[in-house]
Formats: sequence, C-alpha cells, structure tokens
Amino acid sequence: MLGNFVYSNPTKLYFGDDAIKNLSDELKNYGPRVLLTYGGGSIKRNGVYDDVMAALKAAGKEVIELPGVMPNPTAQKLREGAKIARDNDVDLILAVGGGSTIDYSKGVSVSAWCDEDPWEKYYLRQEEPSCKIIPVGSVLTMVGTGSEMNGGSVITNHEQKLKIGKVFGDNVMPKFSILNPRYTFTVPKRQMVAGFYDIMCHILEQYLSDHDDNTTDYIAEGLMRSLVHSSRIAVKNPEDYEARSNIMWTATWALNTLLKMGKSTDWMVHMIGQAIGAYTDATHGMTLSAVSIAYYRHILDGGVAKFARWAQAVWGISADGKTERELALASLDALKGWMDEIGVATEITSLGVTEDMLDGIARATFILNGGYKVLDHDEIVQVLKESM
Amino acid sequence: MLGNFVYSNPTKLYFGDDAIKNLSDELKNYGPRVLLTYGGGSIKRNGVYDDVMAALKAAGKEVIELPGVMPNPTAQKLREGAKIARDNDVDLILAVGGGSTIDYSKGVSVSAWCDEDPWEKYYLRQEEPSCKIIPVGSVLTMVGTGSEMNGGSVITNHEQKLKIGKVFGDNVMPKFSILNPRYTFTVPKRQMVAGFYDIMCHILEQYLSDHDDNTTDYIAEGLMRSLVHSSRIAVKNPEDYEARSNIMWTATWALNTLLKMGKSTDWMVHMIGQAIGAYTDATHGMTLSAVSIAYYRHILDGGVAKFARWAQAVWGISADGKTERELALASLDALKGWMDEIGVATEITSLGVTEDMLDGIARATFILNGGYKVLDHDEIVQVLKESM
Repeated sequence: MLGNFVYSNPTKLYFGDDAIKNLSDELKNYGPRVLLTYGGGSIKRNGVYDDVMAALKAAGKEVIELPGVMPNPTAQKLREGAKIARDNDVDLILAVGGGSTIDYSKGVSVSAWCDEDPWEKYYLRQEEPSCKIIPVGSVLTMVGTGSEMNGGSVITNHEQKLKIGKVFGDNVMPKFSILNPRYTFTVPKRQMVAGFYDIMCHILEQYLSDHDDNTTDYIAEGLMRSLVHSSRIAVKNPEDYEARSNIMWTATWALNTLLKMGKSTDWMVHMIGQAIGAYTDATHGMTLSAVSIAYYRHILDGGVAKFARWAQAVWGISADGKTERELALASLDALKGWMDEIGVATEITSLGVTEDMLDGIARATFILNGGYKVLDHDEIVQVLKESM
Repeated sequence: MLGNFVYSNPTKLYFGDDAIKNLSDELKNYGPRVLLTYGGGSIKRNGVYDDVMAALKAAGKEVIELPGVMPNPTAQKLREGAKIARDNDVDLILAVGGGSTIDYSKGVSVSAWCDEDPWEKYYLRQEEPSCKIIPVGSVLTMVGTGSEMNGGSVITNHEQKLKIGKVFGDNVMPKFSILNPRYTFTVPKRQMVAGFYDIMCHILEQYLSDHDDNTTDYIAEGLMRSLVHSSRIAVKNPEDYEARSNIMWTATWALNTLLKMGKSTDWMVHMIGQAIGAYTDATHGMTLSAVSIAYYRHILDGGVAKFARWAQAVWGISADGKTERELALASLDALKGWMDEIGVATEITSLGVTEDMLDGIARATFILNGGYKVLDHDEIVQVLKESM
C-alpha cells in the first residue's frame, strides 16, 4: 500500500544538447558573485568550462573559482569551501561536474554562514540547516548520483574512516540544473559504467523493499528496463547520444525522491559501499556493484516474491518451470550477467579491500532497517567475505 | 531520441488518508480571503466539505463560496467566477472536486484581474496571462484529469459548440494539492471508470507517437501496467484503498508533463472526444473510450512497431508466431477487452451522438499533427462512423 507522503521537487531542469543556452538567462535570478566549483580540470579539456564561463560573462558575473573537488569530497575540503564562500559573500554556487561536485556544493551552501563545524553538524549529527543557505545551480558532466535534482550530499572523513550521506530538504536542492548528454561523452569508460551501476543501485535500494503493490515500483521497473537497454548500447558506443541521453534522464528520476514515495527503502548496499569508500577511496559505483550480489543473496528469502517479479518484469525471465525462489535467484544471475557486460567490479579485492579491513568496514557501516532483512555486524562481514 | 526540453513542476502534493491535516498549515501561506469552488454538492454528502471548512476555519480564513461548477465547466460560468473573485479580492482559490472544478479554478485565477473576455483570450486565442494570477490550491475528490499537478484547463462553450483546452504554465499550476484516495470512494462507478479511461488515454496520447527509444516511454509502460492491474481490483471493490491510491498516483503522473518530455505527442483522441463533449455534454472519459479503437486502427500502420511493443510490454501478449502487425493489432483487442472489463463506453451512440452530428463534430475537432498519422476531416468522420 502506498503510505502517506509529501511530494515536491523545486529543481528546474534544462535538458538537451543546447541546454547551456539557458544558463545566462537563469543566472539573472541571482546576485553578482558566483562561486564556481569543479573537480580536477577535465572540464577545461572538454570545453564545458569555456561554455560556462561564456554564460557567466554574458550575465555579467564576478566569478570566484573553487577547483579541486575530489571524487570523494572530504570534510576538510568542505570547511575550506565554506570559508571561501563566506569570505567572498557569494550569491550562487555553480557546480560544474558530477555528483561529487554537486554534493560538495550543497555542503558548502549550508555551511558558509554556519558557525558550527559542518562535518559534525550535518553529517555526524544529521542536523538541518539553521543559517542562511546559498542557492546552488549545476551543470552536470557525469551521470549517476542524481545529485542534480535531489538534496543528497555525501562527504568523506578519511581520518575518521567515515563516508556519510546527508539528505537535505527542498531548500538545498539545486535551483536549476543543466543536463547536456554530450557533456558526458568524455567521461572515462570506467567512471561511466560505475555511474550506470550507481543508477541501477539507486533504483534497487528503493524497489527491493516492501511487499505491497505500488505504482512507484512499476515506474522503477520502467526505469530499469530503459537503463539496461541503453547501457548495453552505451558501453559499445559511448558517443551514442540517444543512449546517453536516456541514461542521463533515467539517472535523474532514479534518485529525485519519486521512487521512494509511499514505501520503505533499503539502502544497505550504499551503506556498505560507503564504508568501503571510506577505507579505500574507491569509485562509488564500483563499491556498490562489488557487494550487491552477496548482499542480495543474504536478503532474498525475505522478499522472494519481489525478486521473482523483478526477474520477469525487468530481466524478461520466464516463470515457466521455475519455483518462485528459482525465479528470484535467476534475477541475481541476470544482474551479475549485466554487471559483467557493462564491466563493473564484482570483487572488493579489485578495489583494494584486504582481509584485515573487513571488521573495520563492517563497523563503519550504518545499519538501516527498511529492507527485507536487517543484517548484523557478523552478517555484513560475511557479505564482505563473499564479495572478495 | 529525447529532444531538448525544460522540466519543472512547482506543485506540492500531500498524499494519503491523513493528507487533509496539512491543509490549515498550507493555508497560512496565503492571505485571508479564500474562494471555495466546488461542484454539485457531493462534497457536502461525503464529509469532504466539512473537513475543508474545518481547516479553513482553523487557519482563520474568510470563505467565499462558489458552488455549482458543472462537469464540463462553461465559458459563462467562468465569466461569473472571475467577477466574484475580483469583487471579493480573493487571495487564494481553493478547488474542492475533480478535474472540472480544478480546471475551472485555473481559468478563474487568470481571468479575475484581466479585462478581456477569458474565453476568447485563453481558449479561442490561446494567449498567456498578462494580468495578476490568483494562486490555486486543490483538494482532489475524483481521479483522472491530472489537473491537480498540471496547468491544463478545459472550458466548454455550448453556444459555439466548442470545448477547448488551454495548457497554462508553471505560474498557474496548483501551488498545492491534497490527494486522499478515500475521498474518491464515493464517486459513482460510471464516473470512476470514466476517470480510469481518461488516465489511460492521457498516457496513450503521449506514448503512441515517435519511433524513438525514450526513457519516458518506459515510464509510461510502468504507469499503464499499474493502472490496468489496479483498475481490475477497483471495479470489483471501489473501496480497495490500495488500488484506489495507486490509481490516484498514476493519474497524477500520467499528465503532469513528465510523459511528454523530449518527445512528440498525439492528443487526437482528446480533440475528437472534446468535440463530442461540446455537442453532447457527455462524460469526458467516455467520449475518449468510445472513439479510441477506431482512431487507433486508423493510425496503426504509421506506428506498427510501437503498437507491437505496447502489446508485449503492457498487455503481456507473446510475440510468438505473430507478425509485427498482428502483434500491433492484438494490442487493440487487449485495450478493447480492458474497456469492457472496467465498463466504459465503446460506442458514441450511447453518449447521444446521432448521425446528423458527425460532420459538425468533425469540424469542431482541432487537428493536431504530432501522431503517427494526421487525419483529415473525412477521416475523422470515418472514425466517428466506425465508433457508432
């Protein structure tokens, strides 16, 4: 049954290969000082930086640059960014990059005018913003996290070996996001496919829970079917605009709150994956793919009917001659087959995880209780062992 | 290929069987004078009126009542409502009802402070608002039109024998909508199933067009599968909360702009249906169901692959031993079977259409060109004849 919920999403999206044309008009809604956040400089090589700077110039903005946002943005970098935003009294933070840069920019937006330590306040203590929030806009260059249309922000503290996500509300979501599929063409293939798995995992974290009949789950099935179909095309030809545009659009809807409306969610693959990330700094999507099969085997008996439904509705597996449990198990074979096809990690050893880390990773895993089975510490260690 | 588009939807939704609890808080965002629009008084019999009045009182509002909004709201009623809204200088229009009441309230919202005739300006000439717009909120009591989360507004002029829809922008969409599935339990069965077909038709008008591979169409398939499944339950037991809540949620997403993003759309079943409505004042959903099969037969050869895909993805028809065209035709048999199952009109004669009206109805039909085939006047007459 659909539970009670409130739905709203204030982000405005400009989608398509001329989407950047809307940026200078959109910028008119904000004051003169713009903090431009980005990563390692790939946007300077592929022309996106020039496109964005041209729009900023056309809108007469004063630009303060904040480069060097790392793939797993750190608490220390967040503190530095908050100081820069405050010292320059910026009117808008424009994030140009993937989920890391946008997540980071949300963190800065709620921290600049806040006197408490942002890592402790928002991530460790999960509090809500109580100071002025600087608006955020984004130009997306890598697909996967859905950060372009949600309130999510994941920050890593390597000293504390913790990687924690905070989901902020409507007032922190990007005011606008520019989605040009062409901007994703130059993402290295390993990052591209990690993003594909991240999308699948976002859908599964929300789909593989509950025993109810929900419209939301039918939408999730549609999104998965589209993702599987388009990802197979994109791994062969990363410059297939149709496939990349469909994947970009799927990624946005996979995690812009729609798929969790009225139902419980799991999110344990993300919790385990983030703990691995805190220990190894490995690519986010790969930490998810590497533990998924073992994790789903552990919870499958709590949700056999849903796994069986998934096998048919998304993977096109016939129920003929199979028990429900056989059908459910076949869904995991299909998932594993697709992982191999797109080329994502299926063993955590390939991400630098060693035997001696397992207990620590399991301890760094936040245990949530929305899924088909709540695993304890020993079971998480077991999932990790089976993922080696 | 997903075309270029802009997506945003500002409506906030409160969904569930306690959704009304949010109303008095939400009302605090608006000034003291509220225009309460509703229909024939069913909300006084089922308790919704009392719930709403209690919230209005709790929020300290002065209420101006505007009852009597008819199923196909008229241009004359719109002019009257605009005068009432202006004379009372209302701060909010609260629509309590189905699509007719919400559509009507949007019309009033853009007409109260406008000196031109609203029928001519917005519906005949399809202009945009150029005067103050009064915010609209809604409490939904009948499911189908999606008016609770879009800018659509259909008004009928019986003198001119025209029923015309106008799609307003973000600034006219409801600021908030209260969606309580229980409020729909007392809708008479004929109206309920007409709403079900309206939902299906909204999805099909956007799905049955284009030859591209679009994520949007996969979402549409998910919504249709959910609708078919839940409608079969609801016709047997209209008080099945799970089924009614899923249908309510499907209806909202069927027509809140998502399904048209990046693709062309058809909408000719609605154009023909609305012309029938202008002549007969028949229930909207029934005018759509009654002409659909004949219409789709006429356009099928322009989109055989899509009809065939639909047969498999939504109706679960096996492709084995069938040509693509046979599969496509089987989708229409399945649609007709579902129509009979839920009990919607499949002949326009049952709606009061007579032979002598056909030419006039065809002339009152606005011809759009986004679908698989553009029909001319004679072909529309032919579709109508085949629908008798």
